[in-house]
Amino acid sequence: MPASYAYLGPEGTFTEVALRTLPEAATRELVPYVSVQSALDAVRVGEAEAAFVPIENSVEGGITTTLDELVAGAPLMIYREVLLSITFALLVRPGTGLSDIKTVSAHPAAQPQVRNWLKKHLPDAHWESAASNADAARLVQEGQYDAAFAGEFAAARYGLEALETGIHDAENAQTRFVLVGRPARPAAPTGADKTSIVLWQRDDHPGGLRDLLGEFATRGINLMLLQSRPTGAGIGNYCFCIDAEGHISDRRVAEALMGLKRICLQVRYLGSYPRADMRPGDVRPPRPGTSDEEFVAAADWVARCQDGRF
Amino acid sequence: MPASYAYLGPEGTFTEVALRTLPEAATRELVPYVSVQSALDAVRVGEAEAAFVPIENSVEGGITTTLDELVAGAPLMIYREVLLSITFALLVRPGTGLSDIKTVSAHPAAQPQVRNWLKKHLPDAHWESAASNADAARLVQEGQYDAAFAGEFAAARYGLEALETGIHDAENAQTRFVLVGRPARPAAPTGADKTSIVLWQRDDHPGGLRDLLGEFATRGINLMLLQSRPTGAGIGNYCFCIDAEGHISDRRVAEALMGLKRICLQVRYLGSYPRADMRPGDVRPPRPGTSDEEFVAAADWVARCQDGRF
Amino acid sequence: MPASYAYLGPEGTFTEVALRTLPEAATRELVPYVSVQSALDAVRVGEAEAAFVPIENSVEGGITTTLDELVAGAPLMIYREVLLSITFALLVRPGTGLSDIKTVSAHPAAQPQVRNWLKKHLPDAHWESAASNADAARLVQEGQYDAAFAGEFAAARYGLEALETGIHDAENAQTRFVLVGRPARPAAPTGADKTSIVLWQRDDHPGGLRDLLGEFATRGINLMLLQSRPTGAGIGNYCFCIDAEGHISDRRVAEALMGLKRICLQVRYLGSYPRADMRPGDVRPPRPGTSDEEFVAAADWVARCQDGRF
Amino acid sequence: MPASYAYLGPEGTFTEVALRTLPEAATRELVPYVSVQSALDAVRVGEAEAAFVPIENSVEGGITTTLDELVAGAPLMIYREVLLSITFALLVRPGTGLSDIKTVSAHPAAQPQVRNWLKKHLPDAHWESAASNADAARLVQEGQYDAAFAGEFAAARYGLEALETGIHDAENAQTRFVLVGRPARPAAPTGADKTSIVLWQRDDHPGGLRDLLGEFATRGINLMLLQSRPTGAGIGNYCFCIDAEGHISDRRVAEALMGLKRICLQVRYLGSYPRADMRPGDVRPPRPGTSDEEFVAAADWVARCQDGRF
Repeated sequence: MPASYAYLGPEGTFTEVALRTLPEAATRELVPYVSVQSALDAVRVGEAEAAFVPIENSVEGGITTTLDELVAGAPLMIYREVLLSITFALLVRPGTGLSDIKTVSAHPAAQPQVRNWLKKHLPDAHWESAASNADAARLVQEGQYDAAFAGEFAAARYGLEALETGIHDAENAQTRFVLVGRPARPAAPTGADKTSIVLWQRDDHPGGLRDLLGEFATRGINLMLLQSRPTGAGIGNYCFCIDAEGHISDRRVAEALMGLKRICLQVRYLGSYPRADMRPGDVRPPRPGTSDEEFVAAADWVARCQDGRF
Repeated sequence: MPASYAYLGPEGTFTEVALRTLPEAATRELVPYVSVQSALDAVRVGEAEAAFVPIENSVEGGITTTLDELVAGAPLMIYREVLLSITFALLVRPGTGLSDIKTVSAHPAAQPQVRNWLKKHLPDAHWESAASNADAARLVQEGQYDAAFAGEFAAARYGLEALETGIHDAENAQTRFVLVGRPARPAAPTGADKTSIVLWQRDDHPGGLRDLLGEFATRGINLMLLQSRPTGAGIGNYCFCIDAEGHISDRRVAEALMGLKRICLQVRYLGSYPRADMRPGDVRPPRPGTSDEEFVAAADWVARCQDGRF
Repeated sequence: MPASYAYLGPEGTFTEVALRTLPEAATRELVPYVSVQSALDAVRVGEAEAAFVPIENSVEGGITTTLDELVAGAPLMIYREVLLSITFALLVRPGTGLSDIKTVSAHPAAQPQVRNWLKKHLPDAHWESAASNADAARLVQEGQYDAAFAGEFAAARYGLEALETGIHDAENAQTRFVLVGRPARPAAPTGADKTSIVLWQRDDHPGGLRDLLGEFATRGINLMLLQSRPTGAGIGNYCFCIDAEGHISDRRVAEALMGLKRICLQVRYLGSYPRADMRPGDVRPPRPGTSDEEFVAAADWVARCQDGRF
Repeated sequence: MPASYAYLGPEGTFTEVALRTLPEAATRELVPYVSVQSALDAVRVGEAEAAFVPIENSVEGGITTTLDELVAGAPLMIYREVLLSITFALLVRPGTGLSDIKTVSAHPAAQPQVRNWLKKHLPDAHWESAASNADAARLVQEGQYDAAFAGEFAAARYGLEALETGIHDAENAQTRFVLVGRPARPAAPTGADKTSIVLWQRDDHPGGLRDLLGEFATRGINLMLLQSRPTGAGIGNYCFCIDAEGHISDRRVAEALMGLKRICLQVRYLGSYPRADMRPGDVRPPRPGTSDEEFVAAADWVARCQDGRF
């Protein structure tokens, strides 16, 4: 297996920073790709061991490009997730002051995050979109624009300096990234895990989706993401990308998945992996009646009944 | 194990007739007992191999004496059930005509079943209750009363003749009897089976009972009896005797029982046994998603996911 | 309207004692009837203003005779309920000592309540059933038996004395009685009320009963009694007598009843009346989202939306 | 009120074509805006009577820009919807043949819809993105590119001709557009209507979303769209945009909305309007127990019970 990780490039973006927080990234070659699709394809064809891509953020919700890639095509699996708080630095060529800035640039996704800051501090600056924040920084370096919004880490790479840091309009702006590989045995449960799946309904009737969610609810499993995506069968036809608390080796999660498998047209398993937002000690205990011990005791009891020993 | 069956006596009642419909009854000594309690105690202490008692009828619903015995005390188990249509004969000493009848007798439970018939054909006859229908026949034989309502089969035993047969006020009057023994491996599933349990709720809150029933409903399992019985912990405290379609070896039933075991304070298994009201070919097929094949396929799929082979 | 209350006689029973706890009983003539059926018929034909009968006790659960009368025939309505703790006195002729007692008598329903006491204090006494506890006392007075189990209040009436009081095997032995009249506007809500209904399912399918109970559960309404009773359409066909928390003038109760009315074959309303087990201040507040204020606010909001004012 | 409709421009796009299918568009001035946001703001400030924007398509699902505008800010309301099948024409300057085409252009959203066609018929053509399909056509007119993918209707406007029409990779490619105005009394129900709302959960717990969907399911109401959108309170915090069958004046819909209003933190009503995918006669009748007649009958019955007339 190739010792490289693909990631959504270019270099010098939040994605790369997030990827480098993973200890295992230190021992792999990190290869930027121009799109989520090309990074994931690199995994599918065996060019990369895994790919690191954004999957959800606090402004856009689920990143549809990534979800659609996971939903269709050869099966992939989420190995890990990383949460990164997103704040911007205003990068300029050394010597530039706030009053010198006539043009600012960044990726369009950055614009809603800095709009208020701009209105207050640079109301007259002209905005120019760039292909990525890193690209905006490069264009500042080359003198095409006066300032770029990018991660503070990009300053060194492009010989710029940060006039201002910690810029963000929304509190709690975060992006969630995932490390995606080919199907494999899921990482061992840590006690604070998450399981991702995709569901296709068998047919569409009143209560259909309610019943699917009931497979989680009756087993005390909380949901963390529910994102509908078109199935390709015409408008109004959706499948559902779901992140649920717990690990597939938890009995309550395994039984919920079995229940879904039985009543859905199709279920695609996308992996079980440690939660990035919580340590094991912080997870609330399972609802009474849903712990592994209770599942095992109940199975033992039924086996004894089936055997006449009760 | 003693080769005798206890049953609710005396001889010559519907209970004995129902018991004799069981092929295995031909090879056992059949011993009448004066009460349901004493018949079941005979099983508990090993005096009898099994006991045959009424458990439900179309007029009274669940027979509380029997249910309360199954709910409490040393565990017992239902091996078989028998359904018997109840119609009465009017038994008289030979030579008696309808116009000679001044007094009629039977067990009080028979009265609501023959009230309309009496009003029409013997509006002036005086009713006297007896300890059993068989006892009423005996008292007619002895000349104490003029006529008895009893099973037609009782005529021969007491030297009486049936002036009229097929008497019943309610259409579809039936009694259900069960053969009860000590815990044992349940009979093999036939395809038309029933499972009996008793449930005690963990606590009483809005939706508590709804959620218990949901364990059956979400797995497409129909209920055939739901009878509440006091727990003994004061007024308003009930446990629930439930008959559900299917056999404990059916995956959907086993999983429902496990679910109940996990969320209930207590579950008592009372056995799985062939339905007396239906042949295997008449049972509707399980709801899509609840067949054994689908349970097995879903378990296999989860196992493959847990193993990274998907 | 006649100023009399019918009650299940004879005089001198727990029923009469319970009835006399109602302030309104002081201003009515209290007339004993020989059966629940005859007492309720007296109401139906206008012979009595209301009838007072037992409906539930901590040993037997729902009193089926009473429930069946309420379920069928001309509609009746529960106006009030009374809870009475049941403890027995051992009544003897003056001068009788414990060692003089060879025979004891009472109504058969009393037997399970005093069995342990008898085993301990009068292991050799012979039990003789009587038609009522009051009747047993009368027979002691007449010298037929040595002792009777009855309410302590019966001693004076029959010239007996209580050798022992407070006899009860089960802790919390209670009987619930109801005052039943013809349909009328229910008593005003007190804040601690109960609503009684009977439900007939439209058809029998997996989840049918679960869905009926869901009409209560989704509105945060707790159930206090669920008693199945045969419909008369053959074995296995049941209707359900239900006591639910709250008053029909509570919005959540009214909406639940409407929901049941829509999905059931039939719903029979049996009244809303003050709870005997709780004072208004002791009732827990409605679950968030189910208070009258929230119902009114939600209805207002929908009306505004329908009107374009939102 | 100004007699103009804002729409997402520029002129000559599918949006304009869809808008012109509305009879009322013929009597309004149609004004193109550069963004969904600016078109909707024009309505909010009173510059336009209504705005016409895309809200869902069969490839992307819910259009998040539009949904996010409806979710936040001053309330708006959907008056009408239009469904448009999307097929492309390959537009060229008169005289151009397929073999002359070296560069093709269109809006990026068009690319996934024509990729397969391109691979087959113009495998070597170079793709250049344009700001809109209409803009691509203009650039072909000006000679910058050789061909544009756009609606066939754009040919006349730009003096081009369609070398090929009916181009689409996905079967059933459709876009749904909505006419959005300020809050007003919803259009009268037609029998084939849709109601749009946004829900915010009170708190996040296992079963929370299941219970919200249950308000629709228990009343037999089918859902047609469920799209989660970030609330802005940080990653993992979502509200839900829902399209449900039926009109707010349908009793079942009104009661479901009231139920949601009571249990949600917030509900935003977005309007009830005729379905574009179905005529009234094609809508399946409401599930038994959920018709207006049954709601009215149930409400009458409860009123009679409250009044003592039952």
